[in-house]
Amino acid sequence: MPANVVETTFHVRYAETDQMGIVHHAAHAVWLEEGRSHWMRARGSSYAQFEAEGLLLAVSELHLRYHHSARYDQRVTVRCWVEFVRSRQMQFSYEVIDAQNQTLLATGYTKHTCIDRSGNVRKIPPHWQMYLQG
Amino acid sequence: MPANVVETTFHVRYAETDQMGIVHHAAHAVWLEEGRSHWMRARGSSYAQFEAEGLLLAVSELHLRYHHSARYDQRVTVRCWVEFVRSRQMQFSYEVIDAQNQTLLATGYTKHTCIDRSGNVRKIPPHWQMYLQG
Amino acid sequence: MPANVVETTFHVRYAETDQMGIVHHAAHAVWLEEGRSHWMRARGSSYAQFEAEGLLLAVSELHLRYHHSARYDQRVTVRCWVEFVRSRQMQFSYEVIDAQNQTLLATGYTKHTCIDRSGNVRKIPPHWQMYLQG
Amino acid sequence: MPANVVETTFHVRYAETDQMGIVHHAAHAVWLEEGRSHWMRARGSSYAQFEAEGLLLAVSELHLRYHHSARYDQRVTVRCWVEFVRSRQMQFSYEVIDAQNQTLLATGYTKHTCIDRSGNVRKIPPHWQMYLQG
Repeated sequence: MPANVVETTFHVRYAETDQMGIVHHAAHAVWLEEGRSHWMRARGSSYAQFEAEGLLLAVSELHLRYHHSARYDQRVTVRCWVEFVRSRQMQFSYEVIDAQNQTLLATGYTKHTCIDRSGNVRKIPPHWQMYLQG
Repeated sequence: MPANVVETTFHVRYAETDQMGIVHHAAHAVWLEEGRSHWMRARGSSYAQFEAEGLLLAVSELHLRYHHSARYDQRVTVRCWVEFVRSRQMQFSYEVIDAQNQTLLATGYTKHTCIDRSGNVRKIPPHWQMYLQG
Repeated sequence: MPANVVETTFHVRYAETDQMGIVHHAAHAVWLEEGRSHWMRARGSSYAQFEAEGLLLAVSELHLRYHHSARYDQRVTVRCWVEFVRSRQMQFSYEVIDAQNQTLLATGYTKHTCIDRSGNVRKIPPHWQMYLQG
Repeated sequence: MPANVVETTFHVRYAETDQMGIVHHAAHAVWLEEGRSHWMRARGSSYAQFEAEGLLLAVSELHLRYHHSARYDQRVTVRCWVEFVRSRQMQFSYEVIDAQNQTLLATGYTKHTCIDRSGNVRKIPPHWQMYLQG
């Protein structure tokens, strides 16, 4: 894991479970997103600020591997880091773990393309490049 | 029930269940929304068209009463109708029923306020008044 | 507001927004649920424990009134308290506020019926009555 | 694409959008799930029936690549097929397309492990093997 890991911890919500009695697999995609939101907050800016400058980091790829079930009320931690930043694209990687005993629940990554409000691909501006490369 | 009822039918999705083994109560709010989306489509326009004219029908109130559980794979029907239309507000009402045996699953209503993209309250334009009053 | 108010605070998730640019109204139903989950944790037990005893608090009614929009990244606080506990039913009430400036975003309540895993209505056991009445 | 492709078509729901003005990427995971639910229904059984026999097809891996944005009210089609079935695992693959002009919106796959209600890995029973292999 690289040096720029940021962790965010929260309780599993009841609405995130399904009739298997465990967390629905799509909920993890939302957790990863909250993980990268927190990554940006923890480093002194925010994704809201990125959008305020007229740019979006649209998700171009999502991958999740599920190792152990998560359950309602459990405290889970999302570990998030930047895997790479290129001119127009970047990747966040993630581990989802049990906050108490550190069991690995899921691993994943998301790739993002920088676009503007019209959907055109744009370069990630230099000050955001620096920020993201940390 | 008034004359302007429109029905839309779909299967319950797995993600809509929770660990009680039944549909999570928040999923019904999304079903009502799909019911009113379909109401507008069925009457020859769409809510997308409403937004294309720069206006929004923001939800100001939501009420749901749950009578019987809904389950994964069940076919449910949302019956939706306009309860009233005023100058700046309107109400949709709903019944959610089992599509096969007509059991009443839930009843509800949503109240909406017409606003613009800046969040200012606006009058519902005359052509939309006519359309909504059917 | 009664004495048994418990507050829980979290950031608005990106997935909770919709194309109006604000939080989708159904997300609040999940926030209320997280509010009552936290109410139970804060008072030394948990809803998970309630279910572990074979009982469920099924939602029989949901009401939400939306006062101001919530936005991505905003910190919101859910204030939750028990409005009443009867033999087989109970009600939680809620306020959702901006965590920073205390603006009231939404108010609501949920009514719950105690059932068992077969869906039969059951009395809320005495030790849970005491716990819930605080 | 193999011979066992099944298509299911539906309208994009408003709740599935986010403040980018397009469908949130996690919604696609739910669409894939609805695609495989429909695959099973279209072939004369259902995933509900699979669970009724005490078995679950837990998601062990999810992959999604996003090609074009989906938007509210758009009609989308999920094409779903079985990629392989092994003793204890299987894979569904998917294409999400615009129902009207056939534009490819997303591609993906999900891998599943057969488990029982206690979470133990189990063999997929022979009659389900045959059914899934089509």
